Amino acid sequence: MLNIQPQRLTREAFAPFGDVIEIEGSEQFEINSGYTTRVHDLIDVQLGGENARAQFSFFLGRPRPLEIRMLERHPLGSQAFYPTDNKRWLVVVATEPKPEEVRAFWATGKQGVNYHQNVWHHPLLVIEPQQFVIIDRGGDGHNCDETELDTAVLIKLNE
Amino acid sequence: MLNIQPQRLTREAFAPFGDVIEIEGSEQFEINSGYTTRVHDLIDVQLGGENARAQFSFFLGRPRPLEIRMLERHPLGSQAFYPTDNKRWLVVVATEPKPEEVRAFWATGKQGVNYHQNVWHHPLLVIEPQQFVIIDRGGDGHNCDETELDTAVLIKLNE
Repeated sequence: MLNIQPQRLTREAFAPFGDVIEIEGSEQFEINSGYTTRVHDLIDVQLGGENARAQFSFFLGRPRPLEIRMLERHPLGSQAFYPTDNKRWLVVVATEPKPEEVRAFWATGKQGVNYHQNVWHHPLLVIEPQQFVIIDRGGDGHNCDETELDTAVLIKLNE
Repeated sequence: MLNIQPQRLTREAFAPFGDVIEIEGSEQFEINSGYTTRVHDLIDVQLGGENARAQFSFFLGRPRPLEIRMLERHPLGSQAFYPTDNKRWLVVVATEPKPEEVRAFWATGKQGVNYHQNVWHHPLLVIEPQQFVIIDRGGDGHNCDETELDTAVLIKLNE
């Protein structure tokens, strides 16, 4: 069993895996006669394969053990998560599906992520029950690969 | 000046204008070994015209006078709004851009809407400052028409 600690989620640290969704540092401009700020076009929504379309869903996540034993990836599209309950949560990714490559990030309740196509990640990990908006890809074709790790990775919470 | 009162937002009442985004009444199933409920594929994301793609943005809305003097529509795509601060807000739409056709709805802080292509609606109306996730259409072409009403419509809050 490997132990890892989550690091703070930043655009720089997360760049190999996809987009961070947050207001800070994003392009913004005024619309609607100045009554609305548009924080504009935050992610790359990737919709590959046959009959692809964008899907809007909610995920209602519940806490689970913080032992990482498997990872998954979506070969045909990106998958974005944004929390709507303003509670922090955990993001777990890997450049390759090997225990020593697994990275964990603390996302604040005002940070989401967009996993790019083919990026290995763990299914949703929350500390308390919470709701997320999900933007992912619908359409024909096989869009989920799963793999088991040969050693489990335990996330040790540092806060 | 016409006066109208907002009605409760329901799928039935909103059907001529687009989709209501809420957990209640939506298809859902368990994923992630039972640790996540997926509330699945809630809206029709419409992406018409040249080089269309889905855009994920935030709108940061601020209160404004509740006098409806203009409406807009998006001829090339849908536009979805989902609140992330759990505060109620107002949805204003019309089947035709005439004062007597204007309808107002109270959305709860856990209800969003998706305006379908070509549906007349008022820009974002909030009672307190709040943040929304927006899913709309990017790409080439003219995607916003605006029109002035010949008489203003005043929204009288009933709560």
